[in-house]
Amino acid sequence: MHRTRVRVVEDALDANNTIARANRADFDRASVRVVNLMSAPGAGKTTLLERTLAGLGAVRAGVLEGDVQGSMDADRIAHLHVPVVQLNTDAGFGGECHLDANMVRSALAELPLADLDLLVIENVGNLVCPAEFRVGEDARAMVASVTEGEDKPLKYPLMFRACELVVINKIDLLEHVDFDLDRFLHHLDAVNPGVERMLVSARTGAGVEQFRDWLARRAARAPAPV
Amino acid sequence: MHRTRVRVVEDALDANNTIARANRADFDRASVRVVNLMSAPGAGKTTLLERTLAGLGAVRAGVLEGDVQGSMDADRIAHLHVPVVQLNTDAGFGGECHLDANMVRSALAELPLADLDLLVIENVGNLVCPAEFRVGEDARAMVASVTEGEDKPLKYPLMFRACELVVINKIDLLEHVDFDLDRFLHHLDAVNPGVERMLVSARTGAGVEQFRDWLARRAARAPAPV
Repeated sequence: MHRTRVRVVEDALDANNTIARANRADFDRASVRVVNLMSAPGAGKTTLLERTLAGLGAVRAGVLEGDVQGSMDADRIAHLHVPVVQLNTDAGFGGECHLDANMVRSALAELPLADLDLLVIENVGNLVCPAEFRVGEDARAMVASVTEGEDKPLKYPLMFRACELVVINKIDLLEHVDFDLDRFLHHLDAVNPGVERMLVSARTGAGVEQFRDWLARRAARAPAPV
Repeated sequence: MHRTRVRVVEDALDANNTIARANRADFDRASVRVVNLMSAPGAGKTTLLERTLAGLGAVRAGVLEGDVQGSMDADRIAHLHVPVVQLNTDAGFGGECHLDANMVRSALAELPLADLDLLVIENVGNLVCPAEFRVGEDARAMVASVTEGEDKPLKYPLMFRACELVVINKIDLLEHVDFDLDRFLHHLDAVNPGVERMLVSARTGAGVEQFRDWLARRAARAPAPV
């Protein structure tokens, strides 16, 4: 039975990759660079986007919000007058714990791709499955909050390994939590040596210009290899 | 294709429930009450267990630790001289994002069930799929941290609805974060009206005796209906 289960999963991943490539072809044709933004629930992805998307200057950004249920995050982003589409994953089952390429594909028609330079896909809050499903993105970034503890790179290695950027958020709380930053960085380098990282507080705004600059640089880059 | 996918998932849940009932029969035969403890990554499940298991008095407790990878949490619990078994979910695929009944079943032989009154199963940190898979438990409890924001009951309704207890953790950080407790409780009651809740700080120890008492009461109860 175990073998059967694994085979089904591999088929599903194979189908996902095929659709992810189709998404990427559409993004490339429209000259839109795409960032898949991931984190645990409540790590601060939406607040970070609120802080950074408004000041992107000439870069025309859009957002695809992935949530099990509700449109609270999309409503927050819409206040910035940024094009945003909410994708809910609760259609079947008790709710999918990640976005996959086909869900993203189903939203493409709702997105004004021709008017965008950058699309940020905010994934469902989860440190496991979102890292397993490509959605057609050029780059993957994650937000890790200092309130989550310094052991997380070792406990969720695929997520930390899959990303080109790790944003360490809520640094305004460093003095109030038991979080050894050096130890976290040591664990991070153990699973993804030298990965780009930045320290920010989306709440206070400290350091968020680093993320804004990173988004702007991604938007200006040639497409990454699929 | 969508229909096929849903059918496979339903089959998987059906098989899971069959195995969960077998687990429960084994637990009942050994007179062990079982709590499935869930949360987002880094919400403080292990710290809460460290704080409460030591002082359980006559209740003989054991722990089953679920993690994608590593044995850090099991090592922490072992320091309390509590029987603990680590279950890793990374055998196939990139790592399963939840425990299922069959994984728990595979660990039963390693647990000294005859010597226990209470087994706490610490699930993988995730607010979606763990709520969808029964593992043979009598009760489900979750830990929600105030750092995660007050919108979480609305964004992950199945998790908050599935639990008999919601432990609101990290209240020592309340004055340092933008978290409206009344609003969180309002959202909680919207998805699970009147569910038992308690305010604690596993870090400082504030309020943790409520959770210790809850565990002791669960251990003394007759088995819940499966």
